[in-house]
Amino acid sequence: MVSAISIVAIFALEGFVTTYSDGTKDLVFVQTLWRHGDRSPTKTFKTDPFQEDAWQFGGGGWGQLSPAGMKQHLNLGKMLRNRYVTNYNFLPNKYNAKQIYVRSTDVNRTIISAMSNLLGQYGQNDNSSTPGLDYPDVDGWPAGYVPIAVHTVDDDTDHLGNMESTCPFKDQVWELAKTSDEVKSFVNSADVQAVLGNLTNYCGQPVDIDNLWIITNALYIEQIYYNATLRTKNNWFTDAFYAKADAINDQVQLFQNGIFKTVPNIVNGHDVGVLTRKVRGGPILNDMVMHINLKLMCQGQTTPNCTWINNLKNYIYSAHDTTIYAFFSALLIEEYAVKPSGGYPLYSAAVLLELYIDSVDKKPYFKMVYHEQDGSGFKDVTMGIQGCPQNSSYCDLDILRNFANTIKPDQPIDQWCLTDLNKSSSFATVSMLFIAAILAINNNFLGLF
Amino acid sequence: MVSAISIVAIFALEGFVTTYSDGTKDLVFVQTLWRHGDRSPTKTFKTDPFQEDAWQFGGGGWGQLSPAGMKQHLNLGKMLRNRYVTNYNFLPNKYNAKQIYVRSTDVNRTIISAMSNLLGQYGQNDNSSTPGLDYPDVDGWPAGYVPIAVHTVDDDTDHLGNMESTCPFKDQVWELAKTSDEVKSFVNSADVQAVLGNLTNYCGQPVDIDNLWIITNALYIEQIYYNATLRTKNNWFTDAFYAKADAINDQVQLFQNGIFKTVPNIVNGHDVGVLTRKVRGGPILNDMVMHINLKLMCQGQTTPNCTWINNLKNYIYSAHDTTIYAFFSALLIEEYAVKPSGGYPLYSAAVLLELYIDSVDKKPYFKMVYHEQDGSGFKDVTMGIQGCPQNSSYCDLDILRNFANTIKPDQPIDQWCLTDLNKSSSFATVSMLFIAAILAINNNFLGLF
Repeated sequence: MVSAISIVAIFALEGFVTTYSDGTKDLVFVQTLWRHGDRSPTKTFKTDPFQEDAWQFGGGGWGQLSPAGMKQHLNLGKMLRNRYVTNYNFLPNKYNAKQIYVRSTDVNRTIISAMSNLLGQYGQNDNSSTPGLDYPDVDGWPAGYVPIAVHTVDDDTDHLGNMESTCPFKDQVWELAKTSDEVKSFVNSADVQAVLGNLTNYCGQPVDIDNLWIITNALYIEQIYYNATLRTKNNWFTDAFYAKADAINDQVQLFQNGIFKTVPNIVNGHDVGVLTRKVRGGPILNDMVMHINLKLMCQGQTTPNCTWINNLKNYIYSAHDTTIYAFFSALLIEEYAVKPSGGYPLYSAAVLLELYIDSVDKKPYFKMVYHEQDGSGFKDVTMGIQGCPQNSSYCDLDILRNFANTIKPDQPIDQWCLTDLNKSSSFATVSMLFIAAILAINNNFLGLF
Repeated sequence: MVSAISIVAIFALEGFVTTYSDGTKDLVFVQTLWRHGDRSPTKTFKTDPFQEDAWQFGGGGWGQLSPAGMKQHLNLGKMLRNRYVTNYNFLPNKYNAKQIYVRSTDVNRTIISAMSNLLGQYGQNDNSSTPGLDYPDVDGWPAGYVPIAVHTVDDDTDHLGNMESTCPFKDQVWELAKTSDEVKSFVNSADVQAVLGNLTNYCGQPVDIDNLWIITNALYIEQIYYNATLRTKNNWFTDAFYAKADAINDQVQLFQNGIFKTVPNIVNGHDVGVLTRKVRGGPILNDMVMHINLKLMCQGQTTPNCTWINNLKNYIYSAHDTTIYAFFSALLIEEYAVKPSGGYPLYSAAVLLELYIDSVDKKPYFKMVYHEQDGSGFKDVTMGIQGCPQNSSYCDLDILRNFANTIKPDQPIDQWCLTDLNKSSSFATVSMLFIAAILAINNNFLGLF
């Protein structure tokens, strides 16, 4: 228990009613980003003995949430309730339609993960809700079950939650990144070529760094559900070989998220590191910061356009490992937060972004907490963010704002996705040359004057 | 029980496996459109003693689904299961992710109505699903509850399900329709003016035919939840006065759905009846017919783009009374289907559009069934559609296709919504004059030749 917590503080700063304070820090808003639970593969390789009909759970077929995945999110929901309702008394004891908003990517596994999570938060038969007021008291309706709406957006254009959204510009940036020396030398290294070559033989299809994840992901899940038969049916499968392929894929994922050892990693005048982080993690980080700025701006305001955010206490994104990894990469803490380093966020991994106002200096602070997987607790990762103090869980909000700014998409992401990198690159090259010329003149670099 | 039903028929027509036949008619596809259940008002008038804080159920606030509404859809879900699983053996005994797709408008009440309905269809503790395969067998998870994803689309641009979507063209058509003689004479009639005038005084705000629904709808719901206090707090409220206002609103709704006594109702060269039905009911009717055409076109095809529709057996739209009424108006059966005539579809009203293939003539037929409200059965309304036989529940699909065609939006609805009726009207006026000129010449109308 945090000793200096005063559970109830009618906050002096006009407009904010909060029920959780840690010393002078008053919690006013929480945003939650999680990965769905355990699932079946979303696709697999040609020669895989475990094709779609091998996956019967969750309604059957590719990419469905399993009962284990539902349970993982039921548990996370209970943990979130314990934190924000029982301990912090910040979220309401029973579901309040104005205080909680749930957005999911538009695929079954993320929607159903959210439904399972909310069952853990507000659907238990624990007398927190009232039959006849919150749910029907009738035969066939589980006692205590309060259905909560999960909202989705079109998946193809969900550039915020779906890292595989249709975004030609993003594809171009990745193609360009693959031509960088660092990626080329990695891909062409003997080890990588050997593994890709072997997999191409084993899998009955060309395997490269773009589709390697399909194989490692299928094998990962098959080790959970078909561990014995996997090894007899795929006699080329060994733990050592899998570990090698998986490590290669981890490194590819770093590249794909704009994380390079070469910093900056400039190709054709483009910093492919920054561009990648802008186009992947930029939208969701800036969406969260936008909510925070709106929350602070609307403090004490009663205008209709502030009603929604003034009432809102918890905004939830139900999404994917790729979303969390892009978010962490945008903040350059992916290796700090996700263990083992380079690995991807696990099932039901969750990031909690908490906004606090200090009752003394009236300034906004944030705290970032990470739930690694089912069974793990909440780990404070705020200190991993460059510029945040190393002796406090609370960091000045401007640090987060600056990160968001530096990787803000150059245009509204919908439009940016449709721009041509090459066209914008000629502009970038010209402007780079122009800047270089000015610098040269300034420093009389060419000894002309 | 339908006597000549053969429950299992491995259909000769290549590609279709169906398990329900009525004589030679084999059921291959069902589309369901329903209204959400009982809710709180979405807004109310200024002087209403029952403002938003009077509505605490369903998470609290405007427009939330009540436990009664959840129960209405739980019941409808059980009825649908009884029809399509138990009796027809058409839909699977347990949830199959490929055979069922649920789309909802993006508001809590329609999403939660769908969740409640699916709880009735596939979430009961009746051993139809398998713990550990379909849901987690753990503490805190209701036995038998199988969570099923409900997909939503952006509400503002959901021109298919949300009749209040942002569609300037639709607003222009309505403004034009209001200038038609029929609507003007109705609005200016003594009765209507008297009621609107009285309501303006009572409600503390100008009341016209555009916002009358807010008052009648709030009063309708208050009669359910606050019937006694309603009459003491609003001493102007009488059943007779309410019935008058409601009847006026019913008539306004007919106009708003493009149903006029004047046929065609031409204003400034536009048939506002057809235009209204095109822009309101056109999208959803054509979406349903598109699914049917796709289903038929993909028969026996194994190409990837046919996989989704080949597997799909039930497409569900969770929407509103306005959606159902627009759909029925598009088919000109709104007064045939919805009783009392002119009234709006009630809570958990549902339309079932069933596609059959005749095993003898190999032709496609449709059957349309209407569930009026909680507690009512399924009523066959196919015969109400012009051109459909009066001695059979099955109607040639081309009749439906023709209706869909006649009220197909002139452009993809997203684009059409952004066109300017006045600009397109000048074109329409010119073309109307042009046609009139040709007719005149043909018939030597002007005696000039």
